[in-house]
This record gives sequence, structure tokens and C-alpha cells, in this order.
Amino acid sequence: MRFPRIFCKRKKIVTLEQDKDMQRVLELAASIETLDEEAMEQARARQQVLTKPAGSLGRLEELAIQIAGITKQAIPVIERKVVIVMAGDHGVTAEGVSAYPSAVTPQMVHNFLRGGAAINALARQAGARVNVVDVGVAADLHHPDLIERKVAYGTANMALGPAMTRVQMLEAIQAGIDVLEAQRVQGADLVATGDMGIGNTTASSAITAAILQLPVAQVTGRGTGLNDDQLIHKISVIERALALNAPDAHDPLDVLMKVGGLEIAGLVGVILAAAAQRIPVVIDGFIAGAAALVATELNPALVGYLIAGHTSVEQGHGLILKRLGLRPLLDLELRLGEGTGAVLAMGIIEGALHTHREMLTFAEAGVSTRTDEA
Amino acid sequence: MRFPRIFCKRKKIVTLEQDKDMQRVLELAASIETLDEEAMEQARARQQVLTKPAGSLGRLEELAIQIAGITKQAIPVIERKVVIVMAGDHGVTAEGVSAYPSAVTPQMVHNFLRGGAAINALARQAGARVNVVDVGVAADLHHPDLIERKVAYGTANMALGPAMTRVQMLEAIQAGIDVLEAQRVQGADLVATGDMGIGNTTASSAITAAILQLPVAQVTGRGTGLNDDQLIHKISVIERALALNAPDAHDPLDVLMKVGGLEIAGLVGVILAAAAQRIPVVIDGFIAGAAALVATELNPALVGYLIAGHTSVEQGHGLILKRLGLRPLLDLELRLGEGTGAVLAMGIIEGALHTHREMLTFAEAGVSTRTDEA
Repeated sequence: MRFPRIFCKRKKIVTLEQDKDMQRVLELAASIETLDEEAMEQARARQQVLTKPAGSLGRLEELAIQIAGITKQAIPVIERKVVIVMAGDHGVTAEGVSAYPSAVTPQMVHNFLRGGAAINALARQAGARVNVVDVGVAADLHHPDLIERKVAYGTANMALGPAMTRVQMLEAIQAGIDVLEAQRVQGADLVATGDMGIGNTTASSAITAAILQLPVAQVTGRGTGLNDDQLIHKISVIERALALNAPDAHDPLDVLMKVGGLEIAGLVGVILAAAAQRIPVVIDGFIAGAAALVATELNPALVGYLIAGHTSVEQGHGLILKRLGLRPLLDLELRLGEGTGAVLAMGIIEGALHTHREMLTFAEAGVSTRTDEA
Repeated sequence: MRFPRIFCKRKKIVTLEQDKDMQRVLELAASIETLDEEAMEQARARQQVLTKPAGSLGRLEELAIQIAGITKQAIPVIERKVVIVMAGDHGVTAEGVSAYPSAVTPQMVHNFLRGGAAINALARQAGARVNVVDVGVAADLHHPDLIERKVAYGTANMALGPAMTRVQMLEAIQAGIDVLEAQRVQGADLVATGDMGIGNTTASSAITAAILQLPVAQVTGRGTGLNDDQLIHKISVIERALALNAPDAHDPLDVLMKVGGLEIAGLVGVILAAAAQRIPVVIDGFIAGAAALVATELNPALVGYLIAGHTSVEQGHGLILKRLGLRPLLDLELRLGEGTGAVLAMGIIEGALHTHREMLTFAEAGVSTRTDEA
């Protein structure tokens, strides 16, 4: 009789611990405030008197005003840039949903650490620090520059049951929160999200279908390059996973746990923590979009802190952005992930802040205003 | 009897001189070669083996291949960047076609030289040298950093007669050729075109309507911010100028002379000279687009050397790009000119070349290729 009692007791302790962890995530989400109206108003007024026709810098003006609202600074400065690349594997790859083998995940993590991937080249150009986090790669990885926060050797196959346990999901979210916090302490004025994980467009499609309550076929694309038959198969696997796990569309963390991924959970943590610290977050493509969708369901005010870096070729991404009311800055037909689109967009965001800060006003430059205002 | 003979003789000398100048421009245009197929093939092959799914860097891959073809280098390097801002005034502003007075042109030139304009902030960010050229501002301008190539104090009012004489147009084109050549000697791997000239969307609409043979209303926008009535007036002024001057749609230099602008002619020179020297040219918005339209009519091979930086809000710009078969890199609702869209796009172009050069190949990085290719 003793053994069951102890078991029950331990289970209860675990449950309490879990509840505490869950509570912490929900409190973090709830702590995210709306943008600062006063700083935005000051930034808007400044844009009206800079030496250019009003509105002629288009979306650069909007970005400057948004970041003023995020940072509570009328003339914000962005100097320290970071991209956080969360890596994790997906049990669902056993179903043959990707054109590449899972072995590519750890291989690409090594490539990131060697500086040989697209994200490294673009981050060097942008002057952004690259953080690579193993939150769930299905291989043992050790490297002095790797942030080792492995929760599991990949998720479980969601076509057979939940991708993660509740504990795993919470640990992965906490990893993201901790990485962001460490970066903030070092100095981070702008954060880009990156991801690596063979199979993660499958998880992102499942999350998107579940939360937006859309047919799987509408939110599912070719990932790294599936043909027509492979795409049909991928859709049927996701449909099976959703039918089996029946995630609650109104509970984003239930969706994340059942059909998400460890790296996606990690990005949820990054996004929540960045917004709570009033740091603008550039979201990359479809995978980051799925993480942003989960995070904004926890607190819609979070959307003000997000900048959509680019439009992914993956069709689900556009639907997420539409739901969030975000317009991507770039449309360059990228479908790589890693944070590439977000880091490329950093140049545009910096352009917005450099013009906002460095341009002279009409009065300072002695330039005439409109004839009909004279 | 003597006076008329001398007059005739002088006129003939001028004509011969003009013919020589014209011949030089036409020969420069004819010297532009098609892109180098071998370098493009090598670049294309490299893109296939870099550590990413084939094609996943989208338009960045296309840019790397195009610039390989332009520079005849399989792995091109862009280090020295230049933006050339051509400034000139427009006699047609007497008709009230702009929301700003002509006085703004010299005021903004001073602002460029002080470093206080949008183009300065963006060029500092991009690491691009700013060249400001007075090719036809209607005010006396002197500054150690100004390139003084004034052909006239603005164009004549095209609603009353040709905007330029043939000599003026050729001088302005030559100014652009000379500035580009001087920059090339200093080192220029990438050139962006910029412009300043109150009234120059009117000239650009007139050029576009004439060469594309489209109704004026279809290619005319609000410039720096006209209201509905002002827009209708602008359209009628352009219609009058085209009816009066009757430019020959099949002679792009006739169109340029009759309804163009001195700064637009200067940009034609820059574009021709850059392409002849195999330097990629990032064209900015509508005004640069009109110059590119004139230049490509002289030699269609030139289009291979052009990169469309962004989509201007001016509707004529989209029609020019369609005719040239160019897809803009950015769409950020800019309508400022100065070269702002082109210089912002430099970051994307550099991203293309950095990934092309710095990424490791699958073999170098020990990364697996597709399962269906294994």
C-alpha cells in the first residue's frame, strides 16, 4: 500500500510544480503592456517636421513610431542586435513528412556554430550576435558556443500521441525566457527569432490549423521542397495528428503541447520575455509565426511588439500574419528559416531609426514647407 | 550677305559638334554587352550546393547570379558603394504642378551636403558615398562637396516648348557619364541612382506616357502630395506639353529633350556609363525609372545591369518596371526619391552576395542532402 501512496504524493508534487511553472508563463504574458502612446505621439510629431514630404518614408515612418511605443523613447536607438536560433527535432518525421532526414538538424546546428550557414552570413552583415540553442535536437551536441537546454531528444510523433508532455513544453518555454533574459543583460535592443528543425513546418501547420480553425490543406505547404504526392501525405499526417490529439483551439498552450515543437515552444518563451522587457521582436517566417500566434493568444497586447520580417513562401504564414494584423517588411521568396528573413529585415528597421534620428527638421535645415501651407 | 553666311557656318559647326556628342552617347549605349553566361552558370551551380534547400534563398539567389553575370565573377564582391544624386529644376513648376516651391531644390541640395537628409542617413548606414551633382538647379550653388555641372538654371517650361535644347540634354547626359567615370576610378562596385528636383514627377510622367504610349492619367500620380484637383491639373499640363512638343515615341532622346529634365538626363548618363563598365545599378523610384526607360530604349541589353530597388507609390513606376521586366526588391511605400529606396535595397543585395560567398557547401559542412537524392 505504501508504494502507491508515495507515487501519488510525488505525482501531486509534480503537478504543483507544473502549475507553478504554468502560472509563471501566464503571469509573464499578462505583464506585457500596450505600447506607450506618449512616445508614439512624439515620434509621429517628429516625422511631420523632418525634411521630406509628410509620409514619404512610408513604412519606415510607421516602424519608427512603433519602436518609439515599444521602447518608450521618442527617438529610439538600436545598437545591440541578437538573433536567437532555437533548434529541435520532430518525432513526426518518422511519417516521412520532410524532404530531408532528421540528421540534418544537428548537422546544421554544427554549421551555425562554425559560422557557415546563411544566418551566419546575414548576421555578420547586420552586426547581430547569433545564439544557437539546443532545446530538443535528437543527437548529443556539445560546443562551447552552444546554449545547451535540451529538454528531450526531439518531440514524440504527434501522429501517435501528444508531441510533448506538459512538463517538456514548459521547460522549453522557460529555456526561451532564460536565453532572452541572458541576452538582455548583455544588451539587446532588437531581437530576431530563428529556428532549425527538420519537420517543423509540419508542426507549424498543425498549430496554425488548430488555432485559426482552418482546414489543414489551407495552411500546409511544401516545406523544404516536397512534391505533390508528398504534400498530400503531409496534409493527411497532420489531419491524423489533430484528430487523435484534439487540441483545444482556445487553449494555445494545449495546442503547442500536443502538435507543436520544442523549438517552437522555446520561441514562445523568447517572444513573451522580449515583449515583457519592451524589446522589439522581428519574427522570421512560418515557424516563428506559429510561435507568435501561440504567444499572442496568451495576450493580444503582445502583437504591438512584433515586426514581421518577411513573407514566407509557406502559405500558412500569410494566414497567421493576417490574423495578427501584421504586414511583412520583405517579400523575397525566402523559405529557409534560421531567422534569415528576420535578420535581413533588421537593415530596414535600422533605416527607419537612422532616418528618424539623424534627419534634420525643416527649421534646422532651412527648407521651405508646402506652398499650400506657407 | 556676309552676316547670314557666318551665321550659317557657325550653326553648322554647332551641329557637327552636337552630332559628335550624340554619336558618343549612342556608341556608349551600343557598347553595353549582355550578361556573362559562364559566370552566371558557375554562380547557379554554387547556389545548388550551399547548405540550404535549393532555391530557399529565393530572390537572394537570383541577385547573386545576376551580379555574377554583370561582373563576370562567379563569386562577386561588393565593397565600394556609391549613390549619385542628380539635382535639377523644372520650368514646368510655373504651371503649379507641385505641392512644394522650386526653392526647395537648392535647399535640399544644401541639406544633402550638410548630411541632414534621408539619403544621408541611409547612405551612412549602407556605407555608401553620397555624390551630389548640380546639373540644373535654378539657383547658384557652391560647396566644396558639390559636383558643379550646371547646364542651365532649370529646364524651360515644357508646357510652352521643349524642356531642353539638344545641346543641353547632351551636356547633362555627359555630366552623368563623367561623374560615374570619376566614381569608378575611385572604386565603385555598386551604384545607386538618386534625384532631387521639384517638378520631376511631372517630367517622369511625361516621359513614361510618351515612350510607353499610355494615357497621361494612367502614369501620373500625386508626387509629393497633390490633392484631387491638383492632380487633374497636373495631368492636363502634361497632356498639353505632349501635344505641343509631339515627342517621337521611337526616339527616346527626343522624348527626354522635349519633356524630360536635366537631372533625368544626368541619370541616363550614369546608367549608361555604369552598365558599359559592368557595374550593377540600383535604380530608385519613378524618376530613376524614367531615366532607365530612356536608357534601355537605346540598348535593351542594359536591363540586365539594373536592379529595381523598390516600388514607388507613383503609379507610373510600376508600368515602367513591367515594361523593363524588373521586379522591385522592396515595397515599403516610399515616395521620397533622393535614392532612398535604392540605398535601402543595397542591404538586400549585400545579403545576397554575403550568403553566396560565405556559406559552406553541403560537402564542406558535412550536411546531408535530400533523402530522395541520397
